[in-house]
Amino acid sequence: MLTLYHTPLSPACRKVRIMLTEKELNVDLIEEDVWQRRLDFFKLNPSGEVPVLMGEGGIVVCGGYAISEYLEEMYPEVQFFGNSLEEKAEVRRLVEWFDGNFNQEVTHNMLFEKVFKHLYGYGEPSSEAIRAGKRNLSYHLDYIAHLLSHRNWLAGDYLTLADITAAAHLSCLDYLGDIDWDLQQATREWYALIKSRPSFRYIMEDRVTGFRPPAHYADPDF
Amino acid sequence: MLTLYHTPLSPACRKVRIMLTEKELNVDLIEEDVWQRRLDFFKLNPSGEVPVLMGEGGIVVCGGYAISEYLEEMYPEVQFFGNSLEEKAEVRRLVEWFDGNFNQEVTHNMLFEKVFKHLYGYGEPSSEAIRAGKRNLSYHLDYIAHLLSHRNWLAGDYLTLADITAAAHLSCLDYLGDIDWDLQQATREWYALIKSRPSFRYIMEDRVTGFRPPAHYADPDF
Repeated sequence: MLTLYHTPLSPACRKVRIMLTEKELNVDLIEEDVWQRRLDFFKLNPSGEVPVLMGEGGIVVCGGYAISEYLEEMYPEVQFFGNSLEEKAEVRRLVEWFDGNFNQEVTHNMLFEKVFKHLYGYGEPSSEAIRAGKRNLSYHLDYIAHLLSHRNWLAGDYLTLADITAAAHLSCLDYLGDIDWDLQQATREWYALIKSRPSFRYIMEDRVTGFRPPAHYADPDF
Repeated sequence: MLTLYHTPLSPACRKVRIMLTEKELNVDLIEEDVWQRRLDFFKLNPSGEVPVLMGEGGIVVCGGYAISEYLEEMYPEVQFFGNSLEEKAEVRRLVEWFDGNFNQEVTHNMLFEKVFKHLYGYGEPSSEAIRAGKRNLSYHLDYIAHLLSHRNWLAGDYLTLADITAAAHLSCLDYLGDIDWDLQQATREWYALIKSRPSFRYIMEDRVTGFRPPAHYADPDF
């Protein structure tokens, strides 16, 4: 049995949970309130961050990068990185782009400011950061639409970790009501397909105290 | 022949260049001034960022994550991710930590503010960001020292991509004179070992117009 330490509104945790479900792996989920800075959790991951996976044989794997590569190598039956070197390069380019650029310019500015900053005791949200996040979101959504204008999925012809990573970020922002789907028809159709997968639907059931998602949030036919 | 588009003071580019040299691969280096936003370069990498590798058979691989994994899979004779699943997990945990947390909290605050912000035309450096970067650097260096207190190399008994990634970041900060090595004896000894490798020494020869590194910068016996 695998164990995953996670927190609900974390794109990296959502990505790993989707991979686990898609690979049909049973996992024991433990919600870790990272902002509590629990000493025993720092012994598992010195950065004190989620996700942390305890795998078979007691292996401890920390962080979305290490866990996703570990799951792909250890349980290769269902693959998410593509097959050829070209496909893998394209998947990893997009994963790095979402977990790097998109995270820094959008997710961090909105999700961290609105939800986690207070929990960590770092003070009030910065309205300037949130505004910058919204501005950046708009042109990053344009890039997703651009990819979907000549591909069925973000990295090519089928679902890969690029789609899962992007959808994990968007789902957290959507929970906060920060995406205007009316402006994003192609992206909305792509996201609806992902949302309708069982691996994604169970994540949509998470609720975070103090934040209620908009009505369309968990609806696959939104 | 491989071709790498790079810019000298980029940790991600330095990491890839070190891997290429350590793997004894011949590469044609092209310096790309990313802030010029050259249209033909955006056709290679839609994010307009370096590093971009053109590999055998015309494959285009974008970003430090995709390139490092590609080089490891394509040219496995000299390995940088460790051998066991445990080692790989530890290497990737640290790589993500340096390219994620360390980059966001330290490198971006210092290198981007001091060097790239002006080149991109984003205005004057923020002294507040630079101060935050220095503060964060101090406790992140403590973490490196902590790792080296019970290991020869950051991820274990031998040099891995974790060391290369960390040294790539530190070398860019050191170019700007931002590291007080007198306070970091263990880290200094580890960094001196990396600096003395031929793969690293040739990177030390890079110079950036308008910025002169401190006297100790390229000296392996600093």
